[in-house]
Amino acid sequence: MNDTSPPLEEDLVHDAEDRLRPDFVKEVLDDVREGRLEEACSLVAELHPADRADLVELAPEADRADLIAALGSLLDADVYAEMNEHVRELVVEEMEPEQAAELTGDMETDDAVALLEDLDDDDQRAILDVMEPDDRAAIEEALSYPEESAGRIMQRDLIAVPEHWNVGQVIDYMRSDEELADDFWEVFVVGPLHHPVGTTKLSTLLRTKREVPIADIMQEEQTLIPVDMDQEEVALKFQKYALISAAVVDPSGRLVGMITVDDIVHIIQEEAGEDALLLSGAGEGDINEPVREAYSGRIRWLIANLGTALLATFVIAQFEDTIARLAILAALMPIVAALGGNAGTQALAVTVRALATNQLTGTNRARAIRREFFVALLNGVTIAIILGIGVAIFLDPMIGVVIGAAILFNILVAGLAGVLVPVILDRFGADPAVASSVFVTTVTDTMGFLAFLGLASAVLL
Amino acid sequence: MNDTSPPLEEDLVHDAEDRLRPDFVKEVLDDVREGRLEEACSLVAELHPADRADLVELAPEADRADLIAALGSLLDADVYAEMNEHVRELVVEEMEPEQAAELTGDMETDDAVALLEDLDDDDQRAILDVMEPDDRAAIEEALSYPEESAGRIMQRDLIAVPEHWNVGQVIDYMRSDEELADDFWEVFVVGPLHHPVGTTKLSTLLRTKREVPIADIMQEEQTLIPVDMDQEEVALKFQKYALISAAVVDPSGRLVGMITVDDIVHIIQEEAGEDALLLSGAGEGDINEPVREAYSGRIRWLIANLGTALLATFVIAQFEDTIARLAILAALMPIVAALGGNAGTQALAVTVRALATNQLTGTNRARAIRREFFVALLNGVTIAIILGIGVAIFLDPMIGVVIGAAILFNILVAGLAGVLVPVILDRFGADPAVASSVFVTTVTDTMGFLAFLGLASAVLL
Repeated sequence: MNDTSPPLEEDLVHDAEDRLRPDFVKEVLDDVREGRLEEACSLVAELHPADRADLVELAPEADRADLIAALGSLLDADVYAEMNEHVRELVVEEMEPEQAAELTGDMETDDAVALLEDLDDDDQRAILDVMEPDDRAAIEEALSYPEESAGRIMQRDLIAVPEHWNVGQVIDYMRSDEELADDFWEVFVVGPLHHPVGTTKLSTLLRTKREVPIADIMQEEQTLIPVDMDQEEVALKFQKYALISAAVVDPSGRLVGMITVDDIVHIIQEEAGEDALLLSGAGEGDINEPVREAYSGRIRWLIANLGTALLATFVIAQFEDTIARLAILAALMPIVAALGGNAGTQALAVTVRALATNQLTGTNRARAIRREFFVALLNGVTIAIILGIGVAIFLDPMIGVVIGAAILFNILVAGLAGVLVPVILDRFGADPAVASSVFVTTVTDTMGFLAFLGLASAVLL
Repeated sequence: MNDTSPPLEEDLVHDAEDRLRPDFVKEVLDDVREGRLEEACSLVAELHPADRADLVELAPEADRADLIAALGSLLDADVYAEMNEHVRELVVEEMEPEQAAELTGDMETDDAVALLEDLDDDDQRAILDVMEPDDRAAIEEALSYPEESAGRIMQRDLIAVPEHWNVGQVIDYMRSDEELADDFWEVFVVGPLHHPVGTTKLSTLLRTKREVPIADIMQEEQTLIPVDMDQEEVALKFQKYALISAAVVDPSGRLVGMITVDDIVHIIQEEAGEDALLLSGAGEGDINEPVREAYSGRIRWLIANLGTALLATFVIAQFEDTIARLAILAALMPIVAALGGNAGTQALAVTVRALATNQLTGTNRARAIRREFFVALLNGVTIAIILGIGVAIFLDPMIGVVIGAAILFNILVAGLAGVLVPVILDRFGADPAVASSVFVTTVTDTMGFLAFLGLASAVLL
């Protein structure tokens, strides 16, 4: 151990943001392409499993099979547990069922479930059929819980001890059994029916004398996760109560598993990040998603958008005569729609975020709506003045008045739609991020064109 | 301990999504308003600190001062550590400096820093001046690191042991010192110059016999966080390597602090969730943000949007004669712009997400661009056929051809802009989520109007 060496030596593998450097990836791929397999393996052997997974993801599809064959056992269960699900699905589909079964058998249950649940039923069945009976039973049980529920993401390996033990007994038990899991941060204390009655952090256990009863140091207040709880709610609980791990219980209250925070950070990131994708109508929106899936995810929203755009067209068409007589209106009207759309999207993004993080509830709903109204009023007045005066000076005073009034009205409508649409969807149990955009844009487009062209027809002609 | 009781008793305080029920909040507020302070306190005493913080956030602003006065010591440092920063800022600004100093003195350094860094310099100084010298020194040191850096979010309390100790010595040391922190999950092993040389999970420590040297069980490979690293990169490291805690080192490599995953989950959630807000131009976008801040955050993007909308107006104005002769074009042209905008936003959201999660790097950039091109081609052809045929049948065959061609062109442009704009911004070190939307919408609006009206002028008139 050379304690005087610089601690942060230059990293030839990672760039400043901890991503694999393109020239490193190229070096490995060139080695594989040109048959220098030992060189490739020795480069990869130094990498963390997460980086090995990144390497497979970053390799062009045409090179992946050769890369995987070349790396062999360097791509173990830990690597597959870290891999992007779309890439992993492609790779696993190419494997023999026996090979895939051995891989999943080496994984923790939650990782094995994550791998298998993405496969077709036939592929899944073929792999399960050749697994060890123990592994198969654990995975089949996990797969019996709903998708994205606590039962799918929990681990079954945990430390549970009876409440009459003392600290010394707990420590001796942990030292005695080689089979016990190594990744745990809390010990669960259970009653005779295997119901959790308390929990003890390892730090507390370590800092307590051996003869103290575990019941004296355990924390009785604990967050219990029902096995069918949605993973998004599990993630919110972990955040809200700053949990490191939590007990999962079945409907009768028995301890059946444990969820640890390292399994949750991915979910927190996914759930928080998917709002941007959902609001844009980009579906799952992963860059490793195959083109045909990306297409089918996005085209439906484009078609929905086409439908609502036709509504706007219908509104404009009612004013064909007005436009024929004063064609400059056609050039100005997109401004009213665009600004309304943007203001609506702002209010929408804020509201969807507040709903997703449980900050907007029945208690402060009215206040949030009032707040958006005032923000919209300030924005609307500002834009109306700038645009109205500009148009009045450079074009025509009356058109300036008309467009100012129309845009103020449309920004107010946009602010209210941006908060009301997601709140209403949420109350009816729909995901406010999914469909809100289409509703809000429809409202701001049609109202914008209607207000501007309607006012213009009444005042200018 | 009654092990036969139902484990998940009905919760009169929380709703199904773990938010405080509106009628519970109302009950507490009514008690405060009508002077039944003891009742209010006994209701609140049962709540977790995170829920007490929620209660203050959910209370209308007019009631907050009375509520806070009534609850007194029930609102301790843990509660303020959990509170929304905008609400906390309002509350702390109302406190006497002595009271705020006592509060922050009770907090862990990272929480105290999070509270103080939001205040005005004067308020901050007034509080620091009346703090205990020890606390003040720790906080001033933390505040000397850049905002949103590891130095701001790290804790200074950690367990560091010399590498020549054995497991028994480590455990005895932890049992001996009452002052040691209680929230830790790993023990750091340091060399003579206090450079970290390894780390040991508490579970490993607990499962190892007392006489084993710590150097034999420590993991030498560890993720060291430089004290000036941006918190977003720290969060990505925690995710990538599934860390529970990590050592923070100063430029000379000395161990100066520790970051734990429970401090990181908030950051992961914030950083992942802010893309939706940034893409919409909603700034920070917190529903507790004061109206004037929300206004100033949003109006600048609306004004930028106004500028780009004027570009589109300028394009359309070039075709005033065409529109005057065929006003139906004015009704159809927003479809071309809207669909292009939507397709561009989809590509943009996917690209921004992939950049933020380090999935899109120099290695697979060309592939990602190619992929977006193909998705755009499929989307464009589909929409062009539907819309072109529809317009041809119900309106006019030649207009159908024109709008089909224009929308195919615009969706292709949109797809490419959606991926190229954020990639280019990212290469130049700008946050791709911040300004991309404005660029992409400008491109799709102007190109959409230009393609449609230009083609129409050439073909139809």
